[in-house]
Amino acid sequence: MMAGVEPLDEAAARAAAALEDRLTKPPGSLGVLEGVGVRLSAIAGRCPPPVPEPAAVAVFAGDHGVLAQGVSPWPQEVTAQMVANFVAGGAAVNVLARQVGAVVEVIDVGVAADLRAAPGLRTAKVRRGTADLSVEPAMGIDEAWASLELGCDVAADLVARGAGVLLTGDMGIGNTTASAALISAFTGAPAALVTGRGTGVDDEQLAHKVTVVDKALSRTGDLERHGEAAVAVLASLGGLEIAALAGFLIGGAQRRVPVLLDGVVADAAALVAVALQERCRDYLFAGHRSVEPGAAVALDHLGLEPLIDLRLRLGEGTGACLALPVLQAAARVLGEMATFDSAGVTERTDVEGP
Amino acid sequence: MMAGVEPLDEAAARAAAALEDRLTKPPGSLGVLEGVGVRLSAIAGRCPPPVPEPAAVAVFAGDHGVLAQGVSPWPQEVTAQMVANFVAGGAAVNVLARQVGAVVEVIDVGVAADLRAAPGLRTAKVRRGTADLSVEPAMGIDEAWASLELGCDVAADLVARGAGVLLTGDMGIGNTTASAALISAFTGAPAALVTGRGTGVDDEQLAHKVTVVDKALSRTGDLERHGEAAVAVLASLGGLEIAALAGFLIGGAQRRVPVLLDGVVADAAALVAVALQERCRDYLFAGHRSVEPGAAVALDHLGLEPLIDLRLRLGEGTGACLALPVLQAAARVLGEMATFDSAGVTERTDVEGP
Repeated sequence: MMAGVEPLDEAAARAAAALEDRLTKPPGSLGVLEGVGVRLSAIAGRCPPPVPEPAAVAVFAGDHGVLAQGVSPWPQEVTAQMVANFVAGGAAVNVLARQVGAVVEVIDVGVAADLRAAPGLRTAKVRRGTADLSVEPAMGIDEAWASLELGCDVAADLVARGAGVLLTGDMGIGNTTASAALISAFTGAPAALVTGRGTGVDDEQLAHKVTVVDKALSRTGDLERHGEAAVAVLASLGGLEIAALAGFLIGGAQRRVPVLLDGVVADAAALVAVALQERCRDYLFAGHRSVEPGAAVALDHLGLEPLIDLRLRLGEGTGACLALPVLQAAARVLGEMATFDSAGVTERTDVEGP
Repeated sequence: MMAGVEPLDEAAARAAAALEDRLTKPPGSLGVLEGVGVRLSAIAGRCPPPVPEPAAVAVFAGDHGVLAQGVSPWPQEVTAQMVANFVAGGAAVNVLARQVGAVVEVIDVGVAADLRAAPGLRTAKVRRGTADLSVEPAMGIDEAWASLELGCDVAADLVARGAGVLLTGDMGIGNTTASAALISAFTGAPAALVTGRGTGVDDEQLAHKVTVVDKALSRTGDLERHGEAAVAVLASLGGLEIAALAGFLIGGAQRRVPVLLDGVVADAAALVAVALQERCRDYLFAGHRSVEPGAAVALDHLGLEPLIDLRLRLGEGTGACLALPVLQAAARVLGEMATFDSAGVTERTDVEGP
């Protein structure tokens, strides 16, 4: 699990940046796409990079003891019901994954209920939901490691089965509370700034949710946030599915595959993953900017710019699916566009060609 | 050409809004996608709406007399060279259109050079480039009408050939100057606020470009901006390809087909189209927010929210192609997602179902 992550290929990055400037367009005119293309080349170690496909969405599901504090208007049973919905293909992530040709794999890392076995569902419970993070550590250190390992294994499996790009997904009623706590812990931003309405709490409930997050942070104290010691922070603030997602990100990076983050839960997991393996960051792309305020804080901290901003707050992997075509477009541009020379197009007259 | 545009189907819109609230997700959690789905239903007159496909990108090309004022670092010949690049399939719009399964049709409405006939190129020159808008009207009123008619016909043809969604594209060295002039004329925003660097001018050139736009606006004066009289403003400030685009938008709306705008040139055309046929607006979606400052001003004026914001400033239809999957996703969500009832998912416990 803690095997190293290789550095990016700087030569491939330079080749891609140089090629961007030779393509038949004003230099820089494809905006964010150009930087994405450069990084995809650096990840793949070649220019042009392969188009990131086929895609696999891993939806990690887990329950949250903190639900006892009334942080969500939705009952815990919805986690299991939504897993059934994913397996049946009726959820938003299924619809959006079908559109982009992505497979959806659901992993039960910590759902409190027993789930019926089904194709596309991997049962790998580390425990049946977390403990209440506002009063005690959400999970044991060993459970955090087990969840990380599981996520890493899922990434390895999906890549072994041919995935060229990994997308994160999550399901867990209560998991925006755990995400807010982790984002506060890893960025230093106060709880009030990173805690949001999740699936839809009102002002009073939101104030209560901030108090709950603050309690968890006080209890956690100033545990080390860097290196393997950071697993204790993860265990304290939890989210079995968040821990598994962090492992999933590391697993993708270890295999030099681009990983597309969904929303705030994935962003929290990314902070954990980067604390554990700093180079992991270079393999991550932010699919979208969630409405949840912690998302922007986490992405700023990570230095990742979201590809899509459609005021989504659903999770499941929906934002990652919507962003996938942008990632693929960036690779295609490098692979398929004509250059000024090849197309016989005159360059601008006032400056030397790049 | 000036045939009416039917109003949206409000019953279909209400049905879609009601369905959005029954789908297995927190109400509103799909953000912008939900409103897009409602409007697609209202356009189609049914819920769920058909997925907007197949897509056709119409790239209207024309040259600009104002280039004599030194408003672009690129020579006029690039317009014709890029048309050849489009026809050969090597430009950015070709790459991005292929990714989303869209056909690209190029229409020469006013390129100054003679173009070699080729499959995918429609030659329909209204004139060989515009006159210099800073000193005289860019085109005659009759030429503006001819360009509008042409664009409208292209939309009709593409829909007759099966297109379920129309995307705008444009090519014309100098056309951000004409777009800025039109955006200023139709929104009332000062030239300095809507004139941008286009394909890449420096500070001094930008200041000069603003002066050029101001001259054109002074010359145009306070011509009527509403109804058919607005064609005189269009003729004065021009862009043969912009006039054709305005007709294309009206043509799509007349056939009740959603039209996805690309960047600032399409946004300028949309202001013209809506001045001519106010209801046209209801059929338009803003593909992206161009870096060009006039784009945001035009979209605000139109009340359209861009689907993508990737700091693009290339034109050609690239932003529209990148946004198409978002439009399609909005329709698919309504057509394919399970409802709380059908999936047996419990709703939130603190409020009555919608």
